[in-house]
Amino acid sequence: MSDQATSIIAGTDSEQPDVAAATAAAVAAFAAYRATTPEERSAFLEAVAAEIEADKDAIIPEAVRESGLPEGRITGEVGRTTGQLRMFAGVVRQGDHLGVRIDPALPDRAPLPRADIRQRMVPLGPVAVFGASNFPLAFSTAGGDTASALAAGCPVVVKGHPAHPDTGTLVARAITRAVEKSGLPAGTFSFVLGGIETGQELVADPRIAAVGFTGSRGGGLALVRAAAERDVPIPVYAEMSSINPVVVLPGALEGDVAALAQAYVGSLTLGSGQFCTNPGLLFLPSGERGDAFLLAAGEAVSGASGQQMLTPGIADAYASGTASLRGTDGIRVVGEGSAAGEHAPAPVVYEAPAELLAIDDSTVTDEVFGAAGVVVRYDDVASLLPRLEALEGQLTATVHATDGDVEDASALLPVLELKAGRVLFNGWPTGVEVGHAMVHGGPYPATSDSRSTSVGSLAIERFQRPVAYQDVPAALLPAAVRDDNPWGLRRRLDGTLEA
Amino acid sequence: MSDQATSIIAGTDSEQPDVAAATAAAVAAFAAYRATTPEERSAFLEAVAAEIEADKDAIIPEAVRESGLPEGRITGEVGRTTGQLRMFAGVVRQGDHLGVRIDPALPDRAPLPRADIRQRMVPLGPVAVFGASNFPLAFSTAGGDTASALAAGCPVVVKGHPAHPDTGTLVARAITRAVEKSGLPAGTFSFVLGGIETGQELVADPRIAAVGFTGSRGGGLALVRAAAERDVPIPVYAEMSSINPVVVLPGALEGDVAALAQAYVGSLTLGSGQFCTNPGLLFLPSGERGDAFLLAAGEAVSGASGQQMLTPGIADAYASGTASLRGTDGIRVVGEGSAAGEHAPAPVVYEAPAELLAIDDSTVTDEVFGAAGVVVRYDDVASLLPRLEALEGQLTATVHATDGDVEDASALLPVLELKAGRVLFNGWPTGVEVGHAMVHGGPYPATSDSRSTSVGSLAIERFQRPVAYQDVPAALLPAAVRDDNPWGLRRRLDGTLEA
Repeated sequence: MSDQATSIIAGTDSEQPDVAAATAAAVAAFAAYRATTPEERSAFLEAVAAEIEADKDAIIPEAVRESGLPEGRITGEVGRTTGQLRMFAGVVRQGDHLGVRIDPALPDRAPLPRADIRQRMVPLGPVAVFGASNFPLAFSTAGGDTASALAAGCPVVVKGHPAHPDTGTLVARAITRAVEKSGLPAGTFSFVLGGIETGQELVADPRIAAVGFTGSRGGGLALVRAAAERDVPIPVYAEMSSINPVVVLPGALEGDVAALAQAYVGSLTLGSGQFCTNPGLLFLPSGERGDAFLLAAGEAVSGASGQQMLTPGIADAYASGTASLRGTDGIRVVGEGSAAGEHAPAPVVYEAPAELLAIDDSTVTDEVFGAAGVVVRYDDVASLLPRLEALEGQLTATVHATDGDVEDASALLPVLELKAGRVLFNGWPTGVEVGHAMVHGGPYPATSDSRSTSVGSLAIERFQRPVAYQDVPAALLPAAVRDDNPWGLRRRLDGTLEA
Repeated sequence: MSDQATSIIAGTDSEQPDVAAATAAAVAAFAAYRATTPEERSAFLEAVAAEIEADKDAIIPEAVRESGLPEGRITGEVGRTTGQLRMFAGVVRQGDHLGVRIDPALPDRAPLPRADIRQRMVPLGPVAVFGASNFPLAFSTAGGDTASALAAGCPVVVKGHPAHPDTGTLVARAITRAVEKSGLPAGTFSFVLGGIETGQELVADPRIAAVGFTGSRGGGLALVRAAAERDVPIPVYAEMSSINPVVVLPGALEGDVAALAQAYVGSLTLGSGQFCTNPGLLFLPSGERGDAFLLAAGEAVSGASGQQMLTPGIADAYASGTASLRGTDGIRVVGEGSAAGEHAPAPVVYEAPAELLAIDDSTVTDEVFGAAGVVVRYDDVASLLPRLEALEGQLTATVHATDGDVEDASALLPVLELKAGRVLFNGWPTGVEVGHAMVHGGPYPATSDSRSTSVGSLAIERFQRPVAYQDVPAALLPAAVRDDNPWGLRRRLDGTLEA
């Protein structure tokens, strides 16, 4: 479908190998697109969802073919993708993201009168989106970054992931149909295929105002660097790398240890372990119950079979990461499953001595993307806390605990909430709910900007900035900040939110 | 008072020339300080305000001596400073900045149950603050950056401005007394004196989590670069450089042109023009009424006298900037006042041809900090729009207009709101109200991060990030997200704010 190294879908089916044409079209579309009313913009997001659904009989098999992921998983991802778009349609219609604040004039204030000052959020401008290999739909062409940027009023230029170019193209065509049917400018959405150079060119383009990225640490940091070299710096929201520590507290081992170990291995091996939130590091109490957990985990993973990884490159990186772990003194294999083909490597659980976390060595703490878990034993929470504090920033941190662990868990929580974007109890980090309270983010290197989330409705705030309007005549005020409040927004008046 | 190159006030009066000691103390204080309740933290901010007021008979004369600014202005700044601290105390007590979101569990949802997910904002960590030369109180040691970072729950390390070290030290001691009386850890606030190297060391310190800066473009960019070179990148909020374009529309010239011109010169020369929001560039219609405005502006500035600038270095930079303007072909002096001493240079208004804005030359568009204004004539708004679009990002953009200018003003507004953090009508940009709707920010190079403001209550959001709590047992939940809502916060339940 896409034979050229680079192609653009920008309103028409004509393909131009030209990033600058896409960003110029985005700039040309910006004024009209950001001027859409909440209703118009919401209807457009819903139209995108409907067009994807209408073409799902073509999209699903293409995504299965390109990603190697099972059809059930891809079908679920279509639902997640359209659900995200509809969630953001609801957010836009409701309007709280506009953050309207009004400090009315105080003409009689002494010693100086106060001007009338009104604030709203405006979109940043054209956004470049880089989709992920592991979610060809939900974190890709029409994924969370695209949906939240479009919701904020920003035109979007997607650089399609080379692991699923044809899926990306089909989705891009669906979005383009929604753009056309909604009467929006063609440049509201563009799709570019290409390699690393194309991505660098897109981020360096002076017309791009922000970047959303989901992928590897190396890829994310390259874009962060490219952005830092621009004359005008821009925000880069790169979701990159996380080993998602899990702490099992002693009480959690008093129940069915084997079931807990199986659940751990289930989360570890889900989708070949190809999730940003894969539980790569587990802290386990020393002692007999811990030994029993480890034995059960070893048995569970030994019975697990490899699954086709997304790309040969990802499988190679997994082979290299596991070889490095295996070759490190002190690390032993707890259990290893079976490979199921050249790019379907065996899942594996290692045990590593805690000392490997303390030294200036990233063998254990670098993410190995795939179904490889490392277990580290600990004696008590006092000795565990400095290990946790020494970890890099994470997307998630998990605690398994019962009521008897309350004291230990209380000591962990303040450390974990500063280390991760999401703290969860008695579950597994894989599975990221799309909702209003979700945070899929976290301190570096989990992301390049911890002040945000790439999943959930708060993600819209990444792509806007505040503007104040001082003594702007009523006839000229933007609708969001007008006295007659035509969009029915809940406003902050003199610091207090309207009821 | 401060003979050493570097000094720290951190709970005691002992002075240690050691940035690392200050940041280590901040880290040590973070857990206890961020655990304060809204009431405790608000009371602390109010105690800081009270301690500054209690010592104002010492602080005011010291600030007058060090800054050369008149006593009335400094007295006003004390009120602005304590007012800001009390505003943030109110923000903290009210609690909306915590952004609480709760998506309750849906155990019966098909195909998968939904976990209980709750979100709140947590403080980023120790913040480094660099005060401004031109506001020795309101944008300095206890200024807006410090107040908003403390309000967010972040310990603060201030690098005092070398232009007012003794004022800074007095204010730092007032804050330290409030820290002690409030029973907070000493490292909640530290004050360091030093030069550029000290500042670089502070920003490079791995314990610093964010930076607030108000000052020159050169100084701000140096800190941005220092932050980009860290292993772990951090947000840098640098408010740097703006020429604050003013557009006079034809209708505004139909009234009292001389009064308008005098008001312009009044804003231009206020405080020797040493404001970030000084109106450095004014667009004036061609034609007779514009000629009359220019003549009146020339007369007004000719009658104005120079005032002592803040430092010899600032006066030197003003001399160099005005020499560059004066030496540029096509630029003419419209009017020039009189100098009042070596460091009290003459205010001046220039006229420059519009072509100088179009070429790749920053002579006219670089900020000249001080009372130097450039007037550019235009024929119609159609020719003006590309000039405005070509400008760099600004803190403010001003329009003078009457009802007859509505069409022109409507065309300007969408351009100006993308160019500046604040758009104002029929006033002058100097004078930045401290309130809830204010934005003192804007696209680069006005600031290094347009997603924020350094004045007004929204500034608190710069120093926090979201964390999600998934299925965290009730006994362990932070107070902000507990079901019993002990702080009486207004929460977003399943996407909808509580009434």
